[in-house]
Order: sequence, then C-alpha cells, then structure tokens
Amino acid sequence: MAEEVNGPLHGLRVIDLTRVLSGPFCTMILGDLGADVVKVEPPKGDPVRAQGTMTDGVSGYFAGFNRNKRSIVLDLYSQAGRAVLCRMLADADVLVENFRPGTLDKLGLDAAALKTLNPRLIVASINGYGSTGPYTDRPAFDFIAQAMSGFMGVNGEADGPPMRAAPPVSDLVAGIYAAVGILGAVIGRDRTGQGQTVEVAMVNGLLSLMAYLASEYFATDELPPRTGNDHPLVYPYGLFLCADGQIAVANSHDQILQRFLDTLDLGWVMADPRYDSNAKRMAAREDLRSLIDSRMAGKSRDHWLGVLNTAGVPCGIVQDLSQVVADPQIRAQQMVIEAPWQDGPNLRVLGFPIKLGQTPCTVRKPVPRLGGSTAEVLAELGYSEDEIEGLRQAGTIALA
Amino acid sequence: MAEEVNGPLHGLRVIDLTRVLSGPFCTMILGDLGADVVKVEPPKGDPVRAQGTMTDGVSGYFAGFNRNKRSIVLDLYSQAGRAVLCRMLADADVLVENFRPGTLDKLGLDAAALKTLNPRLIVASINGYGSTGPYTDRPAFDFIAQAMSGFMGVNGEADGPPMRAAPPVSDLVAGIYAAVGILGAVIGRDRTGQGQTVEVAMVNGLLSLMAYLASEYFATDELPPRTGNDHPLVYPYGLFLCADGQIAVANSHDQILQRFLDTLDLGWVMADPRYDSNAKRMAAREDLRSLIDSRMAGKSRDHWLGVLNTAGVPCGIVQDLSQVVADPQIRAQQMVIEAPWQDGPNLRVLGFPIKLGQTPCTVRKPVPRLGGSTAEVLAELGYSEDEIEGLRQAGTIALA
Repeated sequence: MAEEVNGPLHGLRVIDLTRVLSGPFCTMILGDLGADVVKVEPPKGDPVRAQGTMTDGVSGYFAGFNRNKRSIVLDLYSQAGRAVLCRMLADADVLVENFRPGTLDKLGLDAAALKTLNPRLIVASINGYGSTGPYTDRPAFDFIAQAMSGFMGVNGEADGPPMRAAPPVSDLVAGIYAAVGILGAVIGRDRTGQGQTVEVAMVNGLLSLMAYLASEYFATDELPPRTGNDHPLVYPYGLFLCADGQIAVANSHDQILQRFLDTLDLGWVMADPRYDSNAKRMAAREDLRSLIDSRMAGKSRDHWLGVLNTAGVPCGIVQDLSQVVADPQIRAQQMVIEAPWQDGPNLRVLGFPIKLGQTPCTVRKPVPRLGGSTAEVLAELGYSEDEIEGLRQAGTIALA
Repeated sequence: MAEEVNGPLHGLRVIDLTRVLSGPFCTMILGDLGADVVKVEPPKGDPVRAQGTMTDGVSGYFAGFNRNKRSIVLDLYSQAGRAVLCRMLADADVLVENFRPGTLDKLGLDAAALKTLNPRLIVASINGYGSTGPYTDRPAFDFIAQAMSGFMGVNGEADGPPMRAAPPVSDLVAGIYAAVGILGAVIGRDRTGQGQTVEVAMVNGLLSLMAYLASEYFATDELPPRTGNDHPLVYPYGLFLCADGQIAVANSHDQILQRFLDTLDLGWVMADPRYDSNAKRMAAREDLRSLIDSRMAGKSRDHWLGVLNTAGVPCGIVQDLSQVVADPQIRAQQMVIEAPWQDGPNLRVLGFPIKLGQTPCTVRKPVPRLGGSTAEVLAELGYSEDEIEGLRQAGTIALA
C-alpha cells in the first residue's frame, strides 16, 4: 500500500450507504482517487461479503469492489444509529446510496432534512429506473436493465435471440456516471456553497450507450438489426481464421481495408470490378471470405497480429481472462494488482482504469473487515470511549 | 434550449481536440454539466460529421455526440494554428485528446511544453491500450478492445462463439471514465494549483467491468463459461414465455425466487424434495421450465410484469428501440430529447443519464456547425477583427 501520495480527492469525505454492486463501484472509484470513503454497513454487512468464492475467508467479489474504504457498522433502523449517521453527515461532502427510491425518506433522511442538516452535502442515488415515473418502485437488476434499455436487443446473432452481456454493465456504468455527477456537483458546490442531489438510473445509463444505433434509429425509424460479430455495414470485418485460431479485424473504412488487403497480398481486390465498392463486397462476402481465409490460414495469429498492427489495421484476439492476465500490455498497464485484506492476505483485484500523472491511484486503504474502522471513525467525530462502548452495548454499532 | 441555469461546471474551459467517439462522448458529458467546451476541428471537420444518415444535411450520429459544444476550425498542422491553440490553452482548464499516443508530442505539445504554458492545465488522453507498454502504438477500435479486454469472451451462448456488444462500449466507457478522471483532477488542482495528466485506455476501461467474473477467476483459476442469457449459478432465471411473448426474470436469490414461484401458484416448489436446493433446481431445469411455462403461457406479458414487479421480482421485457422510445418510464425520465442544430432543425438525441436536482443538465448550446464559433472564440481570446481575417486568409482558421 502507498500511503504517501494524496489523491486528487484527498479530504473529500464520502458517507457510503451502498451495497452490492452499482454503489460500491461508484464509491470505490472515489476512494481510488483519494476520497475518504466511510462504508456504513448494517450489522450483517454488505451481502457481497458472503458471496462468491472465499480465499482465506475473504470474498474476492467483495474485495473487487471495496478497496480504499473504511467500514463501520451502524444499525440505521435504530434511532441512535440514525443519530450517529446524522453526526457523520453534518460535516461530510457526499452521501451515496443505492436503495430503492424512497428508502432514505423512510429513514427520516429526505432531501429537506438532509439540506437542513448540511446544505453543502451532495446526495447521490443510484437506482434502477429513476425516482420519478411509473416504474420507480420496480425492483431492479442488471439483467432486467439490459433488457429494458434496448441494450440487449441489439446484441446477438442475426438469427439468434437478443443477448445480454455477462458482466453487470448496467450497474457498473451507472456507478461510473454517478462518480461523474458527484464530482461535477462537488465542483459546483465549491463555487456556490450549495450541495444538490445527483441521481443515476441503471436503465438510463445503459440507454445512453446506444450511440449510433440510437441516432440511426432516430434518423431512419428503422430498427438496427442484430449482426453478431459482423459489422452491419462493412465487409470484410470480423473474425478470421489463421493457422492456429481466429483473429478479430476491424477494417472500419476503405483506407484501413486497403492496408489489410495489401498485407495479405490481396491489394488488387479494391480495384477489381467485382469488389470495388463496399456494396459489392457485402454482396460477395462468401467469395471474399474464401480469398482472405486462403491467405490467413497459412500463418499464425501472432504473425498476422504483428504485420497487421504494424500496417495500422486494428486487430487482436478474443482473449479469455487467463490470456488477459498474462497479456504483456495489461501487465504494463498494471490492470491486475493486489489489494490487502485488512490485517490479512493480499487478493488479486482489477487495477485502475484512470491513470493520473502526478497523483496516481493506489491502494491506500485495504479491503476492510466488517466494522474495522467503527471506533476510529466515531472517535474522529468526537465520540468518547464511554459513548462508543455505550453504543456498542446497545447494538447500535459493532466494533471489529 | 435553456440558457438560464448554469451547470455545476460553469466556467470550466475545456479545449477539445477529440474526434469520432470516445473523446467527443467525454467532452459532451462535461458540456452537459455546464463546461464551456470548445471543439477544435481540422478544416475538414470531425469525420463523424459525414457519417450516418443525414437529416436536413445534418448527421444524427454527430448530433448525438456534440451538443453543448462550440466548434472552431483550426489547422494544427500549421505553425500559426498551433500558436492559436497555445493561446487558448494558456488560460484553459482542460485539454482533451483521443489521438494515438505520441501525436500531441509531434504537434510540439508534449507534457513539458504544456506544463510550461499552463501549469494548471489538466491534459486528458483517451486511447486504445495506454501510452506505455508494448501495444501502445497499435491502432485501436471498439471491436478489438472488446476482444482483447476479455469482455467479448464471456458473452454469448454456451455452445456459440464469443459475442461482442453492438454498441461501442469500450469507447463510451473510456469516455465516461475520462470525465471522472478530469473532474477529479480539477478538484485536486483547485487545492494544489497544479494540473496533471489523465489517461484512460479503452481496453483497461472495459476490463474494469469484469466484476465478479474477474474476482471468481482470481479466486478459483477457473475461466467463467459463456452461459448466454442464463445465470451461471442460479435457476430459474432468464427468459420465459408468456401468452404473447417472452419476459426476462431475474430470480437472483432464494427470497426473490420464492416470491416468483408464489406469484405463479408454484410456491410449493421450494419445499419439494426434488427442488429444495439451487443445485437440485439447476439439475432439474427442464422439469421446472415446463412447470413455469405452463403457468406463464396462460397470461400476457403485461399481466406478469404487473404482478411480478408488485411482488418484488425484478422482471421486464427485451425492448427494441421503438419500444424504449415509447416506454412511459423512459419518457418520464426524458431520456429522448431534442437538440437543435445551430441555426437549423431539431434532432432527436438521447437524454442525460446524470440527473442533478438543482442545476439539471440541459441543451445549453446547439449542435455546432463546423467552425460556427471560430470568430467568437478568437475574439474572446483578444484577437482583433483584422487578425482573425488574416488567419482566415492564411487558411489557419475557417469561419462558418
């Protein structure tokens, strides 16, 4: 762990009521950038602590979402627990929650109460559908958000069913967006003195990624077809078979395609009257595939990756996670790192996608054991040892 | 257009050298939050201006990524053009580019030169693989980043090929992460007075979304199998057939599964010795599917969506874009909006996934025509009318 470099969010106090996925991902990003994230957990802890495969008693799934946080245990269903939370919020910068809309209100922490408590507080909510509209009370889950947002409908083979992405993209994208909104609101607050609410819905976040699929639909009123791994409008493009397996090639426009064909000694194709337009090439896919396969089959993937990348043709292989972890570029980028469990073993986790030149993200805080910082955080708030012991005996807090 | 509410990034000056996808998405997010984004385009413009279906001469694809920006045309391959850029950068907050690593250096704008010019400047780069490591010079493209990051390898049917997501997720996720990094660096800069570099690589961003797929691999050394739309570990879960089509149901744990089965009058299943553990249910998938199908087939999707959501079971339908656009929740959330073309027609674009309570995102600036603000921006920098005319005649700038 590197304690010495302060991240850019050093001094930003984030009170984190989130659990499971979208919210913990958001607050981990803030923690990675240097914020002081206090993860407030119920006595049983974030459910993810008990999920996934355990290594030396620690969930790798939990570790992957909770480095750079401090954990305290607080029973928010007790009056005394909410009083402690309010004392934390009074001088915090950010509150983040991913309950269903309305839960915070039920805890007595509606927007008006929070504003009275701390007008500078930024209150961020991550949820499934948004806190207004007819579906606001619906339970949310990544698979459903993928379905409802239009994302799943465009993925998959032309003759196959709509296909979800296996990673929980709607949670994660909502979490990243929430970090953007929170940091934007912090910058605004530092100018105006006023906090505000920030909300990101999983369905909205995923819909916002529909990019040209959406703009083409808006322009034409035609639904984008599913096209599997092929480009809907360009050929050759996709997966091609070399001597020892497939490579992915993205000949996204004519200039790159010419480089691709030149590298395969097929440079004449673009001038051949049978293939001299993209429309003709789309129509003659089978012929072209035979031509290309006949060249590529003679050499290895590594050969083609080398010469095509050098020629400026975007290409790569479909890596599984073992290949990703071993990939020299991934290693150079330190995208697999170790995070220590509080007083325990190191666990492998994914690295930092945001690379800062002067104050790089580091694992400043270990993955916390449940309630590992309860006493420390309460002491910082001014609670005496006797008060802390009283809260512990009442079951309001738990010490690790 | 709403000019009256200042977003939280009001006053933040972003000089945007990006083109096509990842960078323009990042800077649009900053513009949506109120930053003054000056899009610096080459004389031919961002290539996306000429891509996709045109409506009244305007690319919907371009519109979808470029609201809330001002466009200037500047020839960065001329000495005079770079001099104008340097004058812009001298009092800007952020520079964003998505060239291949090294391009900025070739323009004489290496990190040292930029630091001398403006030590407070934040310099953000979005690229394919990162600016260090063996693949840094490789050309990047979304399809390739999906393949190389491990993302594509986990998607698709168990007996089918790896499956890309159709939306360009690696570009877009990198763009959102870059916005996080930039805003974090702004907050740090406001404390220390020092800007820094921010870099996000498409492959790294997508790898960071591997979530529990990665943590399980780290914990077990077993590669996650592709499982299509099914949950790898839980059944029943997935798509189920009603009288008029399929619905997606996410029975993510036993409590929710019990509610699902109760709603179908199959509450006894969980206590039946044939099905009383998840392992037994996974083994008896075919039997259970018949039971569930026999109940669901009798009623419509709307019926089941109503009663299951009310019961707290996450469920929905796989919507195509026409259904998404018509969805009452999407409409309530204003996720499809209109953005005006500068002096021209309105175009439908996707709305704002980040909802701020006090200073909501709005379309403050239209989608700009090429060079539509060249004269305005140069005048703000102190260029006289004669100087602007001289630059125009030399071909250094273009006025719209």
